[in-house]
Amino acid sequence: MQELTDEQWMQRALEQARHGLGLTSPNPPVGAVIVRNNQVLGEGFHEKAGEAHAERRAIADAYARGNGHLLPGSTIYITLEPCSSVGRTGACTTAIIEEKIGRVVYGSTDPDMRHQGRADALLEAAGVSVCPGVLKDACDRFLRSWFHAVMTGRPWVTAKVATTLDGRMTRRQKFWLSGVDTLRYAHQLRLESDAILIGGNTLRTDDPALTIRTPLQTPSPRKKQPWRIVLTSNLLSLPPQARLFTDEYHKRTLVWEDVKDFRVLLNELYTRYGIVNLMLECGGRLLRRFLEDGLVNEWMQSISPMIGAGPDYVVPGDFLPDEFIFQREELIECGRDIIIRGIL
Amino acid sequence: MQELTDEQWMQRALEQARHGLGLTSPNPPVGAVIVRNNQVLGEGFHEKAGEAHAERRAIADAYARGNGHLLPGSTIYITLEPCSSVGRTGACTTAIIEEKIGRVVYGSTDPDMRHQGRADALLEAAGVSVCPGVLKDACDRFLRSWFHAVMTGRPWVTAKVATTLDGRMTRRQKFWLSGVDTLRYAHQLRLESDAILIGGNTLRTDDPALTIRTPLQTPSPRKKQPWRIVLTSNLLSLPPQARLFTDEYHKRTLVWEDVKDFRVLLNELYTRYGIVNLMLECGGRLLRRFLEDGLVNEWMQSISPMIGAGPDYVVPGDFLPDEFIFQREELIECGRDIIIRGIL
Repeated sequence: MQELTDEQWMQRALEQARHGLGLTSPNPPVGAVIVRNNQVLGEGFHEKAGEAHAERRAIADAYARGNGHLLPGSTIYITLEPCSSVGRTGACTTAIIEEKIGRVVYGSTDPDMRHQGRADALLEAAGVSVCPGVLKDACDRFLRSWFHAVMTGRPWVTAKVATTLDGRMTRRQKFWLSGVDTLRYAHQLRLESDAILIGGNTLRTDDPALTIRTPLQTPSPRKKQPWRIVLTSNLLSLPPQARLFTDEYHKRTLVWEDVKDFRVLLNELYTRYGIVNLMLECGGRLLRRFLEDGLVNEWMQSISPMIGAGPDYVVPGDFLPDEFIFQREELIECGRDIIIRGIL
Repeated sequence: MQELTDEQWMQRALEQARHGLGLTSPNPPVGAVIVRNNQVLGEGFHEKAGEAHAERRAIADAYARGNGHLLPGSTIYITLEPCSSVGRTGACTTAIIEEKIGRVVYGSTDPDMRHQGRADALLEAAGVSVCPGVLKDACDRFLRSWFHAVMTGRPWVTAKVATTLDGRMTRRQKFWLSGVDTLRYAHQLRLESDAILIGGNTLRTDDPALTIRTPLQTPSPRKKQPWRIVLTSNLLSLPPQARLFTDEYHKRTLVWEDVKDFRVLLNELYTRYGIVNLMLECGGRLLRRFLEDGLVNEWMQSISPMIGAGPDYVVPGDFLPDEFIFQREELIECGRDIIIRGIL
């Protein structure tokens, strides 16, 4: 077999990391692969805050496969700089040194000041060779919502909107706008989110479940339903029989009344609930407020092939104080709909 | 050389026909290729109403190439059933029979009752073998605007709209919505149109030229600038110094005041001006009227990567009486914009 490059092994570590998407908050999804003589000794990903990091999962996997004796002198590929401080699970640098792994290759640099750059020094002092920044752009991109949360203290906010060609959000007789393929895509997004936010109006009108039902990929058995967050100007206006208050996940529903400062709210969602990825599924008026406050990071819009449907617009009203320029990252033909995704 | 199939030769005839796009109204753009022993003897396309049809152009081309003596027994591929009635240029069936062409292969059937099906009988009576319906779908699709005009007495109407992601048609300070690539695409559409329609409001606000300036393909030297049609509720409100009234093409500007019945107007555009392809470049209110009357056949929307720009919507107001379901035919990434094109 042809020898794989560092980049190719890092790609495999990224694939491991993807298994942790939506599971690890407030921690980042990280993947690791341990390699020796072009053979995988073990691999793993971080699955849940409070449990083993990807590095320790990969080491455990190597032992489970009977490869423990091959670890000394091997190379570990990690999507993120290994942690060097003792948290709930022990510093990963310690595990690497103890196992006498010979070389550490990582992608992103830890934005957490407690860790940043410390791993390199610790590892090199122990005689481990360190190669940072391999596939850095891809790893950074993959971790961008977590970077954002660590650096701002607020979740990465994705606005999910479904419109007609002429920018409406409703249809007559409450027909669905989106086709089945688009709905599956939306459920996949929920799977990768920690929380979904709506307004009281959406709760009263649609009585949504906001659960993950038909995603594109089978969810991990460990995936919890996302938090369901309701913002309302009047708590008493919310119907107590609504699904969010009565279904089996009702403990995952949080309600805020009359929020004045969305930044404070978002900070609370991150620090108190560990929410890193927040998806807005609210109507136009609430979305407009998030936009006006400059709090929307990502935009996912499905456009359905209709013209002249309902009166509700994505962003109602006159000019926003600032026009947002959208940087397109994906354009997907999704059945009869199209999906545009990018950052603001 | 491998022998080409009837379908492949018809594809070549369609390529010829494309050269006539935007030139031939009220006639259809038609292409023809004459073939013998897998060799092209001559080919041509209809270029202008009142001039030779594609069949006669191809025959003339065969003579010009010194292939006239090879015509007897050859096969002619024509995108549309040849005409059998003597118009300004003589029936094409006569020319085919005179040249002793042995086989006629055509794509679409003529919707004009004067011609329909007559060609087959005339040609077969003269000993010419006839094969209709080759690449019929592609030929019908190519000729659909002309079919529509012949059958309804009205031009095929394409609504061209440029929006932001949230369905707005304007930006602050009158910045352009569309990127340069999209503008070139729009000019290409103008090249394929016989007329462009706007409202008095667009005339006053934008003072547009509505000329073909930067299309994707170099226009034929025979392409005239499209008719520029202005609908206004008040003739006196139009500024006489506007470009449409003062530029070198001012004779190609037509103004209607206070049109009550858009069907009557469209019929006049077809019967009096020979307009087969009409493009709407009007604002939302006028577009809404065309939609309400069910007169829009095709929809071409460019979506620019902005959110929260101007207050003008593509289709302002509440529900349309009928919701239009759009059938997407093209989705193009056009620089930073996307273009969606299809029929209603």
